Amino acid sequence: MAADPSDLESVYRAYVDALNGRRFDDLGRFVQDRLAYNGDPRSLAQYRALLEEDVRVVPDLRYEIDDLVVAGDRVAARLGFDCHPSGVLLGVPVDGRRLVFAEHVFYRFDAGRIVDVRSLIDVETIRRQSASFTE
Amino acid sequence: MAADPSDLESVYRAYVDALNGRRFDDLGRFVQDRLAYNGDPRSLAQYRALLEEDVRVVPDLRYEIDDLVVAGDRVAARLGFDCHPSGVLLGVPVDGRRLVFAEHVFYRFDAGRIVDVRSLIDVETIRRQSASFTE
Repeated sequence: MAADPSDLESVYRAYVDALNGRRFDDLGRFVQDRLAYNGDPRSLAQYRALLEEDVRVVPDLRYEIDDLVVAGDRVAARLGFDCHPSGVLLGVPVDGRRLVFAEHVFYRFDAGRIVDVRSLIDVETIRRQSASFTE
Repeated sequence: MAADPSDLESVYRAYVDALNGRRFDDLGRFVQDRLAYNGDPRSLAQYRALLEEDVRVVPDLRYEIDDLVVAGDRVAARLGFDCHPSGVLLGVPVDGRRLVFAEHVFYRFDAGRIVDVRSLIDVETIRRQSASFTE
């Protein structure tokens, strides 16, 4: 299945399915060989390593698309996470307790593949939930 | 000028212009009487008070649209801020020093006016910049 640049919503949903299925070998279908991640240049291999590290820290990581806005070469997604990170996340010892938080992420596609990612994670909510662990 | 629901990009840009022009009396043209802000119900008056408080804390607040994705009744915006908050922001004594940070915000419109806002601010960057003040 080749990525069809005329239907970025389908491409993006297939990308998220690949992440949730841990099919990292398929990433090249959805991501360019060179991209920018929050303004920093990254190779596909580096981007893959970042995503794999997320799964190492959060074994039950699942990307839920709560909102999706697609226009032209742009995709904006509001992602929801309900997960149990192992060990330390953002300097906080989570140790398998439950965290529920959002990510707001903007993508630019080139020829049907991601070439730019701008991500914000709701760190405040993670910190607040983590603080409640020790209350 | 009435908001035209068929052209949400123009409506959104006019809304941002109103904010930058501090024309809070015009907010009702762009925002429904009842809305949800990050999941919490708010009246237009409460939403206006929130926006006015932002300007009180950040007198030179200016909303720059760095990226905009519009489809159906949805608008997703990546906003950039380059400002000098007075006093304390997020518990940090900024005291007029410069902060540069982003907001990723998703809106849902009803009949051409905002009815739902989901906002994430790059608090990590604000904290990092604030920490550098005292280094």
